[in-house]
Order: sequence, then C-alpha cells, then structure tokens
Amino acid sequence: MPAVITDTIETLLEKKKYSSLRDVLSTMNEADIAAMFEDISDDSIPLLFRLLPKDLAADTFALMQTDSQELLIRGFSDSELKEVFDELYVDDAADIIEEMPANVVKRILKNTDPDMRRVINEILNYPEDSAGSMMTTDYISLRPMMTVNEAIKRIRRTISEAETVYICYVTDDNRKLTGSLSVKTLLLSAPDDKICDIMDKSVICVHTHDDKENVAKDMNKYDFVTMPVADDEGRLVGIVTFDDAIDVMQDETTEDIERMAAINPTEESYFKTSDIKHARNRILWLLILMLSGVITGGILKKYESAYAAIPILATFIPLLMSTGGNCGAQSSTMIIRGMSLDEIRLRDFLRVIFTEVGIALIISVILAVGSGLWIWITEGDLKIAAVISLSIVGIVTISQFIGCTLPMLAKRCSLDPAVMAAPLITTIVDAASVLIYFFIASKFFNL
Amino acid sequence: MPAVITDTIETLLEKKKYSSLRDVLSTMNEADIAAMFEDISDDSIPLLFRLLPKDLAADTFALMQTDSQELLIRGFSDSELKEVFDELYVDDAADIIEEMPANVVKRILKNTDPDMRRVINEILNYPEDSAGSMMTTDYISLRPMMTVNEAIKRIRRTISEAETVYICYVTDDNRKLTGSLSVKTLLLSAPDDKICDIMDKSVICVHTHDDKENVAKDMNKYDFVTMPVADDEGRLVGIVTFDDAIDVMQDETTEDIERMAAINPTEESYFKTSDIKHARNRILWLLILMLSGVITGGILKKYESAYAAIPILATFIPLLMSTGGNCGAQSSTMIIRGMSLDEIRLRDFLRVIFTEVGIALIISVILAVGSGLWIWITEGDLKIAAVISLSIVGIVTISQFIGCTLPMLAKRCSLDPAVMAAPLITTIVDAASVLIYFFIASKFFNL
Repeated sequence: MPAVITDTIETLLEKKKYSSLRDVLSTMNEADIAAMFEDISDDSIPLLFRLLPKDLAADTFALMQTDSQELLIRGFSDSELKEVFDELYVDDAADIIEEMPANVVKRILKNTDPDMRRVINEILNYPEDSAGSMMTTDYISLRPMMTVNEAIKRIRRTISEAETVYICYVTDDNRKLTGSLSVKTLLLSAPDDKICDIMDKSVICVHTHDDKENVAKDMNKYDFVTMPVADDEGRLVGIVTFDDAIDVMQDETTEDIERMAAINPTEESYFKTSDIKHARNRILWLLILMLSGVITGGILKKYESAYAAIPILATFIPLLMSTGGNCGAQSSTMIIRGMSLDEIRLRDFLRVIFTEVGIALIISVILAVGSGLWIWITEGDLKIAAVISLSIVGIVTISQFIGCTLPMLAKRCSLDPAVMAAPLITTIVDAASVLIYFFIASKFFNL
Repeated sequence: MPAVITDTIETLLEKKKYSSLRDVLSTMNEADIAAMFEDISDDSIPLLFRLLPKDLAADTFALMQTDSQELLIRGFSDSELKEVFDELYVDDAADIIEEMPANVVKRILKNTDPDMRRVINEILNYPEDSAGSMMTTDYISLRPMMTVNEAIKRIRRTISEAETVYICYVTDDNRKLTGSLSVKTLLLSAPDDKICDIMDKSVICVHTHDDKENVAKDMNKYDFVTMPVADDEGRLVGIVTFDDAIDVMQDETTEDIERMAAINPTEESYFKTSDIKHARNRILWLLILMLSGVITGGILKKYESAYAAIPILATFIPLLMSTGGNCGAQSSTMIIRGMSLDEIRLRDFLRVIFTEVGIALIISVILAVGSGLWIWITEGDLKIAAVISLSIVGIVTISQFIGCTLPMLAKRCSLDPAVMAAPLITTIVDAASVLIYFFIASKFFNL
C-alpha cells in the first residue's frame, strides 16, 4: 500500500471530514486498513474504526496487531464489543482472545453469545500448537443421501456463517467424515445427483491434537484450501483454512531461522519486542557459545609454546577457524532446510554423510591447493604452506561431517534440528579446527 | 504417507496383480502417488502411471519431480503425451515445459492443441520470476450487467476448463477488471440480482511483470485464494492460484536461508543436485570468506610481537571472535527476516540502529562482567580481565551495528539483504574484533 493513503487519511482527520473519510475507508481492503492503523497515531484508531461499515470493521479487526486490538477493546462499550465479536469467525475470535490479558478475555467472553462462547472455549482448550487450536467450526457439512438440489439449498441456508464454501464436507449419521465435494463439482452436477455418488471418497483429514506445522505441510502437499479436522472418535469437528496454514508455515520458518542464528524464537514482531526482551532472547546462547570459546582458548593455551616459538602459526588461526565454521554452517543449513521441507528424511542418514563427505573432498582440495600456493608464494615457506593445506583438508571434512550429522542426530532425539545450526556447529568446529591444525603443525615442526 | 503403501504396491507389482493395483491407486491422492513414485524404482513408474485413471494420471503428473516427468514423456507415445497434456492446467503445463530439455519441449508442443500451445508460449515468454510466468489463463470471467442466474449458467458452461471457481472476476467491454465475486456471494444472492450490484468493487490485482515474490506476499496479506493478473493495458489476462503462491514463498525462503549460509541458491532439491554442483554452489563464497580470513590474519601478524611477548593474549582470540561473530549473526538474521516479512522497512533505518545498539549495551555489559570475573578468578590477572571485558563491550556493539546496517544498506542498493548474512558479517566482524582487541591490549600493556 502506498504511504500516500495514510497521508490522505491523516489530512482528512485533521480537517474533520468524517463523511469523506468514511467513503475513502469503504473503498479500502481490510488488510490495507489494518496496515494503515499501524502507521497512524494510536489516538486516531478508535475514531477511524467507528467510521468503518460493520462487516469491514470486523474483518479489519481480525487482521490488526494485538496491541491495537487491545486498545480498541478497552475503548469499546459492551454493545460495540459484542457487535464486533459476533461478526468474527470463531477461529479469528479465539486467536485474538488467546493474546489478550485475563481481564480483557473475561469482558469479551461475557459479551459474546453463549454458542460462540462455548466454541471459543473448546478451541482454547486444545494445546497451543495443535490443529484444534487453529481450526474454525464454521464449515458446511452435507449428508451422503442428499441430492445436489437439497445440498445447494442447505448451503444457501448455512452459508452466511461459513468462513469458506469452497469445499463442503460430507458426514454420516455419526458425524464421521465420509467424503468431500468442491463447489465446482456441485455446480457441474445435475440437480438430482446424489451427493454420495459425486463426492470425492478419499478422506484425508488431520486430528485435533496433530501438530499445526504438520497440518500446514499436509495442506501444502495436497494443495488443499481447507483441511478437515476430526476428533479422537473420528467425528468432524472443524476445518483449517489455507490462510491460517500459510501463517503457521511462515511462523515456523521464522522460528527455524531465529534458532539457526542462536536466538530464542518469539512470536512478536521485531519492533513490538522490547530491548530487554531482545537481549534475553539472545544472551543465553551467547553465554553458552562463549563457554565453548573458552574451551577453544584452553586448547590454544596448550599450544602456547608452539606459537611462542613460531609466531606466524597464530596468524593462520582465523583463516582456518572461519573456513571450518563456514563449511559447517553450509552443511548444517542444507540439511536443516532439507529436513524441514521433507526432502531429507532420517533414513537418508548415511546417504547424507556420503554426499557431504564427497562435497568436502572436492571443496577441500580446491581450497587447500589455492591457499597452499598463496602462502608458498607470499611467505616463501613451503613447510607452513603444507601444514595449512593439510589442515584445510582435515578441517573442511570434519566440519561438513559435524555440520550434517548433528542436525540429524538432534531430529533423531526429537529435538529441533535448527538448534544445531551455524553458531553451535561453528563453535564445535572451532575447537576441532584448532586441534587438527596444531596436531599437524606439531608433527611438521616437531613441537 | 506411510511407507507401507509403497511396500504393498511393490509386492502387487512383483505378483503382477494389475487389476488390484489399479484399485489401490484409484483410492490414493495424487500427491501421495507422486511421492510414492519417488520411492519406487524408475522401471516401475511407466507401468504404474498407465494403470491410473485419466484425470488422476494428469493430476499426478503435474505433481511429480522433473526427472520422473521426463522419464515418462520419453516413454509416451504421441497420443499418450497429448492425452496427459490436454488434461493439465496451462500453468502446470508451462511449469513442466520450462524444466524440460529442448527436444522434449518440441515434442510436447507438437502434441498439444493449438489453443493451449499459444497460451503456453505466452506464459513462457514472461520473465522467469514474473507474475505472468506463474499465472494460469483458466479462470472464469463475468460481465457487470449479467444477472446471478446468467452468471451461474455461464459458470456451469465454462467451469470444466477453470482451475478454480472460488472467485469469479468481472470485466468490462475492454476486458478491464472491474470487480470480483466469490461463489459464496453468488449463492447468497437472488437469481435476478445484477452482478455489478453484488460484486466487490475494490479491485486489487498484480501486473504480468510484477516479481512473483511480491505476488505471493500480496496474496498472503489479503488472504486471497486467487490473485488476478492484468497486462500493461490493464486487461485481465490470468490468475495466480494460492498453491503456486505458497510454493513461491517456500522457494524464496529456501533461497534466503541458503544465501544466509553463504550458499549459492539452486532450485533443485538436495539429493537431485550432484556433488560437483553442490561444491560449485558453496566454493565461491568459501574462497571470498577465506580471503578475508587472510586479512584478519594480516592484522594478527601486525601484532605478532604482542602475543610473542604475552602469549596468553592469543588464547582469547577465539572467544572474542566467536562472540563478535555470533552477535553480528543474531542482528543480521533478525533484520533480514524482518525485512522479508515486511515488518522492517528501509525508513526504519535509524530506529533499527537505536534498537540494536540498545540491545548491544545490555548484552555486552552482561558478557563483559561475566567473562571479566571468570578470567580474574581463573587467571588471577586483573589487567587481562579488564582488557577482555572492555574488548567485549566494543566488539559486541560494533558487531551488532554492522549486523543490522549491512543488510539494510544492501536492500537500499537493491541487492538481496540475505547476501549480507552471517558468514560475510562474521568475517568482517572478525577483523574488527581483532583490531579492537589488540588496540585495547596495546594501550594496557604498552605494546
């Protein structure tokens, strides 16, 4: 959205041109309005929000940031609060409530109608990362013996409550899912066709307690707009919509990326997190990694006499450590991403190791020859050049081996492989690099 | 999909139970069949594929890996080839053709009907990363003056060609997009309602030459199932479907993650890439980063006399370098991810710097006090402890400053911020760390 719209709205606000404002806002998409609210001063939000038509207001509300939502709720009268929440889809309402402080939650639940309150409480009861917590109960269910005509009538009757009508689900007398039907099939069929004859009988669904990351992956795999959710008895209890699945995928990726950089992941966005909280998310890993810096230092200290005797040895420490660290980071990143996209599975363990060692051989020979020649020419010392070249072969191979095995071992132990990423591996590799280097150097120089 | 299904199919194949195989395959989802083809021997694929019902065969074909598709195409008769491609949606067909070698492309285009050939050629003509290259031309367009009844009739007539019917687009006499309409609205309206009265008039569309990453971001922002694509004259020429948008988002994220680990991104999956190619994707950055290891080494060499005189100074190099590198990696990762999610924009430049320096102060004080005390206790040398503590404050601050500014400057110069990630920043930070350390040390020890 161009920033110009925000400027226009601010100017209209200053000039108190409320009826023009209402017109401008009505032409805008809810996502753009929600984004605009982030750029505008907090004082103006309640006024602007009240200018929105009822539907648009609820849709916009669902897309706003948590703190703006809270600001609005605190300013709402009870009837305004009820009006907005009655218009929301239950999954959005549940998402919002989950983020609010307890006193706000109490006020919201007091002001929603009993049916919705019951459903919201049900959704809130599912574990935070489960399919149940992200589903909506606003879906259309049909019966196998209905005709297409009856089905369309039923859809028309219940449609206004449903979040999507793209796919209808067919359930039997026990509410068990028996098939699904796209609107496309429905529109293509004759009015008297029986639903059970035209429905897609291959039932793919997830369970309320399934991890929501897996739900998103399955929806992506099957290209589903909605995914049905069944309870422990196999009864259809809700659906997950594609927009929520995309959000989950993005959150999980952000979490992975943050973990890979040794940051404790949070759900809040960058600017919504306080400096103290940012620091807290980063300090723990820094301390752990520093400890291992101490270990590498300890190893170096053991060889103090070596570089006291031949000081030039110390000048190659950064080169070797960073090469090892970078190779390890490359391997671990490829493996972690490959596993999160399901391209690499645990049973590929040996295949991955062979691949990485193969790559390591190619890379290490190039790097060893290149750096060896460079050192020989610039330093004129063949012995040092040989030590560095040999060390590089050893360091690159070990680094890629560690870089590919640790994430897979983490997964084997049901840990998040991303925790084993660059920083941790770099630090382990650092110690290994120094050991290999001084082992080879001490052989060559009889230290 | 449980591996058991693959075992069952292999057993049925061995026993030549083709009619049972056909039954088993018919109950499976196309995505599962495509995944199963990856696990089974190449020789069995053509036979199994020919057992699939026609629709399912085309759907499965669209989801298969490129090399399996090529294997099948090479084995197809001309009529089989035509049969499969006639059933495909044009965007899928164009995607497949894009990956094939020239002689296969020629054979495919010879065997598709002229209409489809024209459309495929059009899509293939758009730049690789553009909205045009990922769109499909199979969509339903309505006219503003139609009634709901007429619209439904038109939908029924054209629906079998359309990839999705969830959203219909309304165009005027010049094929300009004037509104959109969900099936939900259509089903809720009276048969005589005019389309122009019930359609959503806020037109949000992308252009054929827009970057496909931005298309995916917009679809996510607006929660769109489909996004209309207009040409330079504003005429509707196609739509992008959500499943393709999700794939683009995932590919872009993988690219980011690989770049952040100093790997040249490829489109192929891990095991489809040869060792040589893997090595080629990694070696360039390793060489560049090694060069900067040489620079850090050069700086170290300048201080050779310092650690020859006080060898214990060298043992803290790994600790300081890794702390700097990790802090820089944390900052750059937060900024790069924030920018790719549009949470951080270029105009937030100063705000980001203030935030990161604020965080750096908190973190550096904790790390400095911790490590200072530790060194004082274990080494019993207050002077060394002071040097390390002071160095840490300087190094952490500089690292986070470099870590947050470089990705933003890269974006300012229209480069991918991910290129400025951990490895490059670590290496720059390494040099800075060594300089700061020996500068402080030389002041304290009068070196």
